[in-house]
Amino acid sequence: MVILGVDPGLATMGWGVIETDGNKHRMVQYGTLGTPAGEALPVRLRAIYSGVQQLISTFGPDDIAFEELFFARNVTTALAVGAARGVALVAASQHTENLYEYTPMQIKQAVVGYGKADKHQVQTMVKMLLSLPEIPRPDDAADALAAAITHAHSARQRALFKIK
Amino acid sequence: MVILGVDPGLATMGWGVIETDGNKHRMVQYGTLGTPAGEALPVRLRAIYSGVQQLISTFGPDDIAFEELFFARNVTTALAVGAARGVALVAASQHTENLYEYTPMQIKQAVVGYGKADKHQVQTMVKMLLSLPEIPRPDDAADALAAAITHAHSARQRALFKIK
Repeated sequence: MVILGVDPGLATMGWGVIETDGNKHRMVQYGTLGTPAGEALPVRLRAIYSGVQQLISTFGPDDIAFEELFFARNVTTALAVGAARGVALVAASQHTENLYEYTPMQIKQAVVGYGKADKHQVQTMVKMLLSLPEIPRPDDAADALAAAITHAHSARQRALFKIK
Repeated sequence: MVILGVDPGLATMGWGVIETDGNKHRMVQYGTLGTPAGEALPVRLRAIYSGVQQLISTFGPDDIAFEELFFARNVTTALAVGAARGVALVAASQHTENLYEYTPMQIKQAVVGYGKADKHQVQTMVKMLLSLPEIPRPDDAADALAAAITHAHSARQRALFKIK
């Protein structure tokens, strides 16, 4: 099974693709989609929309796992980040109904075994679980891979976003 | 010129189409796009995306005017409303680069001539300017028509979202 993990964001959206049999995971590729702060919002959102479409057509994921956004500095930031996430969700949902969303705590629990683990512990486990030579950079990409691993570990977990 | 006005929202998105020569406006149609609160977010967003696409293919607007979102009760609400707005913006931007956004104050100024006008004054002017037999319902649709009228009155106004 191929899983695309996504860490939504407007300026930088992290993504990571893994292949898994449920026990062993293999890293396929990871990276970020960036949109320039100077562009108009619709242009940036369109770039995210087509970027997610390209990822999906390149990797053909069976399932897509989002890190849940539940925090933003303020309402203005939340409106912008919410837009980026919404656009990514629509692009993803046009490909598959197998969309899932995990909170940061669920991800830490699944990857490190401890819901209050720090960022570095999560990244170290991502490196180990995917047998990578080093910690994936930037953080957004590591977070996206962590979301994908969480989904691989959590097939029976409640699927917040599973579309009936 | 045909203008589509949009008042973004997740549960209810108001829309209104007018035809204008710059001085006189004619109401073409108005309504709302609703998404049920019980559905998963990606399903609701996909409904908004295809709803906006349908409006565009039905009415073929030259320009699209959004009422700017800048307020939300809290961050959680802002993430959801921001998602709805983002999806509508992407659907709109795939049709035309002529996207505009007006603040509630700009809309009140343009429609009533007073930036602190109340909701009822705006609605009464929408009714008058479009020669309607009654105030358009619900409020979201009236707000969308007001955004369209604002754009008709504001061709030279700074276009926040005009894509170069």
